[in-house]
Amino acid sequence: MTVNPRATKEITQAVHESFEHTPSPRLRRIMQSLVTHLHAFVTDVELTEDEWAKAIEILTATGHITDDKRQEFILWSDTLGVSMLVDALAHPAPDGATESTILGPFYVPGSPLRPLGSSMAEQEAGTPAHIFGQVRGLDGKPIAGAELDVWQNGDNRLYAVQDPDAPEFHLRGRFRTDDDGRFSFWAVRPVPYAIPDDGPVGKMLNATARHPWRAAHVHLVVKAPGYRSLTTHIFDAESDYLDSDTVFAVKESLCLSFTEHGADDPGRPEHVTGPWVSLDLPLVLAPSDGEDGVVTDRGRTH
Amino acid sequence: MTVNPRATKEITQAVHESFEHTPSPRLRRIMQSLVTHLHAFVTDVELTEDEWAKAIEILTATGHITDDKRQEFILWSDTLGVSMLVDALAHPAPDGATESTILGPFYVPGSPLRPLGSSMAEQEAGTPAHIFGQVRGLDGKPIAGAELDVWQNGDNRLYAVQDPDAPEFHLRGRFRTDDDGRFSFWAVRPVPYAIPDDGPVGKMLNATARHPWRAAHVHLVVKAPGYRSLTTHIFDAESDYLDSDTVFAVKESLCLSFTEHGADDPGRPEHVTGPWVSLDLPLVLAPSDGEDGVVTDRGRTH
Repeated sequence: MTVNPRATKEITQAVHESFEHTPSPRLRRIMQSLVTHLHAFVTDVELTEDEWAKAIEILTATGHITDDKRQEFILWSDTLGVSMLVDALAHPAPDGATESTILGPFYVPGSPLRPLGSSMAEQEAGTPAHIFGQVRGLDGKPIAGAELDVWQNGDNRLYAVQDPDAPEFHLRGRFRTDDDGRFSFWAVRPVPYAIPDDGPVGKMLNATARHPWRAAHVHLVVKAPGYRSLTTHIFDAESDYLDSDTVFAVKESLCLSFTEHGADDPGRPEHVTGPWVSLDLPLVLAPSDGEDGVVTDRGRTH
Repeated sequence: MTVNPRATKEITQAVHESFEHTPSPRLRRIMQSLVTHLHAFVTDVELTEDEWAKAIEILTATGHITDDKRQEFILWSDTLGVSMLVDALAHPAPDGATESTILGPFYVPGSPLRPLGSSMAEQEAGTPAHIFGQVRGLDGKPIAGAELDVWQNGDNRLYAVQDPDAPEFHLRGRFRTDDDGRFSFWAVRPVPYAIPDDGPVGKMLNATARHPWRAAHVHLVVKAPGYRSLTTHIFDAESDYLDSDTVFAVKESLCLSFTEHGADDPGRPEHVTGPWVSLDLPLVLAPSDGEDGVVTDRGRTH
């Protein structure tokens, strides 16, 4: 017995029409497009009743594992590439500006403003990394007073927000560029880490022979009046998983090479006792087109 | 600044390719189709970061309101017409067989087998309705021993499973056809009811100027060896909401006219004290094509 294509088209059309009287034109467009594409998916794969029941079960489990610290729906969005797609639609960087990538689920607002040159590692967390550079406009002009909001994981693979033993502000900090647009701070060389994979997303990755690893990176949000906010990562160009980052966040221009320094390097600062790395990080912001580049705390439930 | 279509296509392609090594060809097809259609939706509407954040919030609220009695994800599936689409794909009725419709979230297995002619109303629940008829094959041959599993709401608009004051088996029952394929039982005339609308789905219906009402109906699952199981409703042809049933379950062939009888009708049975209605219900089953028509309890979480 074959499916009657007219019957399925009639259902899709009836649902589409049911949204015809939505007062908000934007919501109407979103709901009608959602119906069109959702029905096309179900029809294309001829989703069975058992598969539908399994999908309901997976969504239910996703809802039940999600709380104010674990956001499994964002993990689905990330691992299905939806987060990167939304980012690409929102931040089409013009030629020459630093490219953006996703915010991720570990951003926490309210990091302390730290002095230039200081370290955001409040306890031992891996190989010290000196990150410095200049923030400029597309015209090459230095941007004084730009703010960098920086966060990363340590060599235990955890962000402070995930680690009950870490100080609240460990590996988080805000830095302001000087009059010449320059900044400098100490972080640690980032290490790859697995996204939480003990829930429904982990089961999907396993069933599809994908891995849960993210390439090593440091998160940055850069803001300056008159410029578009930049949400991005610096990836360690030596990291594993650059070509298979599980949330599809890697862009070639964001992969940068850390310079390695031995403990006997004459440039070693006093607070460093062993080998370290350094990175000259040029950051280029596009001019604002009127929007205020406010960072929303979109990665967390309240 | 316009979006670079190449950038969004590259993301979609990368995510599609990430599922290339999925061991199960069926799962690979489902995931790749899901990615294609989900990305097409996001791209078509140019979903903003704020809208994405709102979607995450709605999914999270959906997960948190869902428990073992309330299934908000199924309500989304129902109100977006996905449930009916899956039904249409699974049960393409051949000409002449009774059409199917959705199972709905209120099916509970294990209803008692009741004698033909008895009532499944265990307390007062509205206008008595005598429902009787014959189960036949496509060839017109009566089917003896077919089982009807029947459930409906009462005039308080609730199913027994929703109503802590109702006996467990109230308005639920199984009936077996006699040697001539005939059945007869007493129910009540169904009334329209609103799906639960105090959660995210209710907010969507409100924001899109849709209503939460279902046209009045009685649920049936009909099974007989050698025939395809039939999951369907009988709709009261006099009901409101037939043309705007909120889960899109109405099919014209399932809208049947109850005959009204006054209290002075000489045919009034002893157990009925006032007016009643009756319905002659022909049911036609398609031959099984080898599948066992097992009713799965797909409407409920365990």
